[in-house]
Amino acid sequence: MEKINLGVIGTGRIGKVHIATLVQNVPQAEVIAVADVNLDSAKEVAGQFGIKSVYSNYLDVINHSGVDAIVICSSTDTHAQIIVDAAKAGKHIFCEKPVDLSLEIIKGALMAVESAGVKLMVGFNRRFDPNFLKIKQMVVAGKIGEPHILKITSRDPAPPPAKYSAVSGGMFMDMTIHDFDMARYIAGSEVTEVFTKAAVLVDPEIGRAGDVDTAIITLSFENGAIGVIDNSRKAVYGYDQRVEIFGSKGMASADNNFPDNHRFYSSDGVHGALPLNFFMDRYLEAYANEMKIFCNAIINNLVLPVSGYDGLMSVAIAIAAKKSYLESRPVKLKEII
Amino acid sequence: MEKINLGVIGTGRIGKVHIATLVQNVPQAEVIAVADVNLDSAKEVAGQFGIKSVYSNYLDVINHSGVDAIVICSSTDTHAQIIVDAAKAGKHIFCEKPVDLSLEIIKGALMAVESAGVKLMVGFNRRFDPNFLKIKQMVVAGKIGEPHILKITSRDPAPPPAKYSAVSGGMFMDMTIHDFDMARYIAGSEVTEVFTKAAVLVDPEIGRAGDVDTAIITLSFENGAIGVIDNSRKAVYGYDQRVEIFGSKGMASADNNFPDNHRFYSSDGVHGALPLNFFMDRYLEAYANEMKIFCNAIINNLVLPVSGYDGLMSVAIAIAAKKSYLESRPVKLKEII
Amino acid sequence: MEKINLGVIGTGRIGKVHIATLVQNVPQAEVIAVADVNLDSAKEVAGQFGIKSVYSNYLDVINHSGVDAIVICSSTDTHAQIIVDAAKAGKHIFCEKPVDLSLEIIKGALMAVESAGVKLMVGFNRRFDPNFLKIKQMVVAGKIGEPHILKITSRDPAPPPAKYSAVSGGMFMDMTIHDFDMARYIAGSEVTEVFTKAAVLVDPEIGRAGDVDTAIITLSFENGAIGVIDNSRKAVYGYDQRVEIFGSKGMASADNNFPDNHRFYSSDGVHGALPLNFFMDRYLEAYANEMKIFCNAIINNLVLPVSGYDGLMSVAIAIAAKKSYLESRPVKLKEII
Amino acid sequence: MEKINLGVIGTGRIGKVHIATLVQNVPQAEVIAVADVNLDSAKEVAGQFGIKSVYSNYLDVINHSGVDAIVICSSTDTHAQIIVDAAKAGKHIFCEKPVDLSLEIIKGALMAVESAGVKLMVGFNRRFDPNFLKIKQMVVAGKIGEPHILKITSRDPAPPPAKYSAVSGGMFMDMTIHDFDMARYIAGSEVTEVFTKAAVLVDPEIGRAGDVDTAIITLSFENGAIGVIDNSRKAVYGYDQRVEIFGSKGMASADNNFPDNHRFYSSDGVHGALPLNFFMDRYLEAYANEMKIFCNAIINNLVLPVSGYDGLMSVAIAIAAKKSYLESRPVKLKEII
Repeated sequence: MEKINLGVIGTGRIGKVHIATLVQNVPQAEVIAVADVNLDSAKEVAGQFGIKSVYSNYLDVINHSGVDAIVICSSTDTHAQIIVDAAKAGKHIFCEKPVDLSLEIIKGALMAVESAGVKLMVGFNRRFDPNFLKIKQMVVAGKIGEPHILKITSRDPAPPPAKYSAVSGGMFMDMTIHDFDMARYIAGSEVTEVFTKAAVLVDPEIGRAGDVDTAIITLSFENGAIGVIDNSRKAVYGYDQRVEIFGSKGMASADNNFPDNHRFYSSDGVHGALPLNFFMDRYLEAYANEMKIFCNAIINNLVLPVSGYDGLMSVAIAIAAKKSYLESRPVKLKEII
Repeated sequence: MEKINLGVIGTGRIGKVHIATLVQNVPQAEVIAVADVNLDSAKEVAGQFGIKSVYSNYLDVINHSGVDAIVICSSTDTHAQIIVDAAKAGKHIFCEKPVDLSLEIIKGALMAVESAGVKLMVGFNRRFDPNFLKIKQMVVAGKIGEPHILKITSRDPAPPPAKYSAVSGGMFMDMTIHDFDMARYIAGSEVTEVFTKAAVLVDPEIGRAGDVDTAIITLSFENGAIGVIDNSRKAVYGYDQRVEIFGSKGMASADNNFPDNHRFYSSDGVHGALPLNFFMDRYLEAYANEMKIFCNAIINNLVLPVSGYDGLMSVAIAIAAKKSYLESRPVKLKEII
Repeated sequence: MEKINLGVIGTGRIGKVHIATLVQNVPQAEVIAVADVNLDSAKEVAGQFGIKSVYSNYLDVINHSGVDAIVICSSTDTHAQIIVDAAKAGKHIFCEKPVDLSLEIIKGALMAVESAGVKLMVGFNRRFDPNFLKIKQMVVAGKIGEPHILKITSRDPAPPPAKYSAVSGGMFMDMTIHDFDMARYIAGSEVTEVFTKAAVLVDPEIGRAGDVDTAIITLSFENGAIGVIDNSRKAVYGYDQRVEIFGSKGMASADNNFPDNHRFYSSDGVHGALPLNFFMDRYLEAYANEMKIFCNAIINNLVLPVSGYDGLMSVAIAIAAKKSYLESRPVKLKEII
Repeated sequence: MEKINLGVIGTGRIGKVHIATLVQNVPQAEVIAVADVNLDSAKEVAGQFGIKSVYSNYLDVINHSGVDAIVICSSTDTHAQIIVDAAKAGKHIFCEKPVDLSLEIIKGALMAVESAGVKLMVGFNRRFDPNFLKIKQMVVAGKIGEPHILKITSRDPAPPPAKYSAVSGGMFMDMTIHDFDMARYIAGSEVTEVFTKAAVLVDPEIGRAGDVDTAIITLSFENGAIGVIDNSRKAVYGYDQRVEIFGSKGMASADNNFPDNHRFYSSDGVHGALPLNFFMDRYLEAYANEMKIFCNAIINNLVLPVSGYDGLMSVAIAIAAKKSYLESRPVKLKEII
């Protein structure tokens, strides 16, 4: 294969991001079909990017004979069924996270993928951010020695509507899930136990909807390292995404990205720019890298860097985190999966 | 009182630091008596700093009629009895941390202090470090709004001998105790619950001695905030002491201190100095400020900025942290005290 | 006009950069014609980006009836003639810097532009770099008060071949010219006098070719401010591009851009990434912004942010800088223009 | 010699700094005599620091039989004569900068020193600042390779009274003189030519007094390197003292010192502390190191790290800088000395 023809399912915010990347920055990729339950949305996007086939039913994309692989950007509750259908049709799959909120359903989807012998990559875009990639490379290269302590700070600039929690599965499932994947990725080891301390400090509405907005989550890893994630739904200074890993030979850390690197010295202090405020600005390069790597791996029959198993494990940790919070005790992963 | 006459008990490392500060940097203070069980050590220090009265028995310092206040720098197991004796003699007291390893014994000492109406300050020197002081001031001034998340990183450059653990009470009692005090100080609220995840990753000897060398400790505060401390006995890059507090209006953080602020750009990267490696270099200014504040408060009859209760609570949290580690569950402070 | 049709002349390195930006990132622009004296190069680029009309003679681009504006990316010695021809044909013009090495020839070109009533923008891309833009905005907003001292550091990662100097007009004309424009832009004032101290420290070949590779250039501005540019043809640590402006109310500075913002603390120091090494990486965003702004200004009939006069003045300052170097004395701009 | 007895002449601001350092931080030194034309000032200082002999006439200090070395902190116009008198009395000498405003007078004083065979150190304290020392060490160690470009930023927080210029010799002589010494020190080479561009931008009174308050000074060095110093009498954000040296193998720079290293992230930016505002805070460590090194060198008969020749050359460069400014042309040092 020299070129890959793609069909995209779901033309909401993230669907548009992937389509724009594929059209503008991935020369070996062509988006030839698109579907959205909202046909008007699909048509608009197709028009803007010159995509020929437009559908409201995602099965039409899957069954389009020219389509080599599909990119799933629809709502979470549809992911698993689309994976199953695409796998059956022999199409390779890129799926946004989370695969599903239920471990059983995810396992079912992964079995369908395995039976069909197609490839599946889950959209943990942050792995492809140049900062976190650099940290991962340093860990793999042994620069920090044996990992001892992993720290992830992950704070959003503003909470989603409180009612979103019901659909999304809550903060651990829609937000921290990225950090759970990052933790496994950077530590290079599986999580074995989770302890969650969480609170509703940002917005009481979130609490009334049964969710939390602030958390400190302690992780134990198979390799003996320990880790901690701290989350907030609202950092007034912007999107705060940092990683630090400490080991026997040193420490590597990645700071936020900033729109510029000016400094202003006035009579009342030294001032600089705030971190990038929007996840698409912060992870612009990560999204582009992710899609390039997916297309390249399919074309050249390479191993995909984020597997279905990665998608499964992040959801399992999110479930453990929630359980730990509800039961005020450390929860072992083997209780969950 | 215009000037204060001090007696110092214990002329080991920290005793010398305090004496040097008092002699060189606190004009209103005079060190007139000194004692150490090792009389030769006491004599040497007295000679170096021109201190007139030298004893091997600390009671001689306490009972010296010219002494207004004593500075306790002897081994931990002697602190409480010296406090009691000094209180009975009507002398004000500065005592190094921890006051004792037993809550009952500390309570007894505090009662003696209260009965005698003398003043007692516990040596949590880090409160007087310019960086942490600045963070505290910003919290008090409301700059960060309501505190949500507190993070303390505290890593030593090298572990003490493994056998030291038995005497010291272990890592939580001899090292993290500073962080427990810092947590209460910065958050401005009492700790209500502790969860400890700890491990032996630096040196198996430490494990064999029944102690740990690496930990992540989650704290809950009365005001609703949550916090986390991460500890290691061995950071190869030096002494790592940082604080970050995140709240509804922003985040304030304090970085390490460095011996200089050079940057070197060579063909293989940008390089800078390591953090100060030794606690006396890192906290030089803190030690000096601490002693000045103690003397000034005694002279002018002001409230001391670190109370006996602060000394008690830090030990209680250390006990809770150890219990949480041993029982693998969150421990409430009210179980302890 | 709702959309702009462009013809690009010259398909070398910078020509490709502009074409890629226009095709991928400027929706209101369409590149419909392209020319290069090397027809094969033009054809290859046209094929890659789907450009319909391909020529070896630039006049064919200018005379293409569909072309609204041209982008001149050919060699410097052809710029002025192409400007004149395009102006006569009533086409708007974007021209790479420098317009020409001769002030007389530039003046002639500008007169042709003025007579024809077309618009001309000169490619000082750095004005559109987010860092320098931020500094400019702060100056304009009065944040630094009255400007007193302007400092520009501009160092290349590696020198061009020594023989390139003959064609390019030398370091002041091909490299420092960007800094001369930046100086006028940030200071918001015209340069009145130049003093150059320069040397050959990087490569003796450069000296033998009659050029220099290292310089410190002092500038006087009409508004009373003074400034200094320091240049080197070879910074082993990468592309070093910084600006600092100091005034009555404060100082604003812009640091380099880095590929990531990791820090690595090992036992031998703290390490970070080198600045971006390649001008196209460093100024990627600047090139894109520049082309968007040009197209938008033509479509909406707005004033262009870099004028032909700006192109003229930067060359005049370069000539003064060279003269100052050769005559070892400060040279007034009015001696030159 | 195991201990050194010192006499201090001049008990103004800098005199007090040196006395405090000697008394508190240099155990092998004893200040046994002090003099000031204002006897009350001398008495007050003597009382505070327990100095036994107090005089109004500096000759009494010089002739005090117990005095091994003198520290000259009196007004500039008295330095040379005191040096001559001290040399004749066989006393070693530490002299604040500048030695004198006249090269002839300095030369005379240096000859007296040489004839007497005593040691003389000039008070260029900044050489002993940990930051600049680190840069010097890196240059000496060959880390930056051959030096190409040296940059010194030196800005005061506030100008002295305009009339002070008459006494001090003006900005180049009282302020930039430190930078001229730093330039020779860091570059490790003599200055051969100076070009000054200066202005009155801070305070017109300074101009009326015949001085300038803002300057950019280009330096040429014997080793081929070139350098630039930028000065302002008023940086509203504090004392700004930075050095950068760029060479064939890399660049080393030293930033300012800050009272703490907090960062505050609020909704309107990231904020940090201003640089230390007062030269005694900024150079506290430098002053202490300087005095320790002087005493140690005298005691152990070592070469002093700042010679009388260094004192002479810095004044010569200051004279050249002034001449360059007045005559608007580069001035060679050999025209001056």
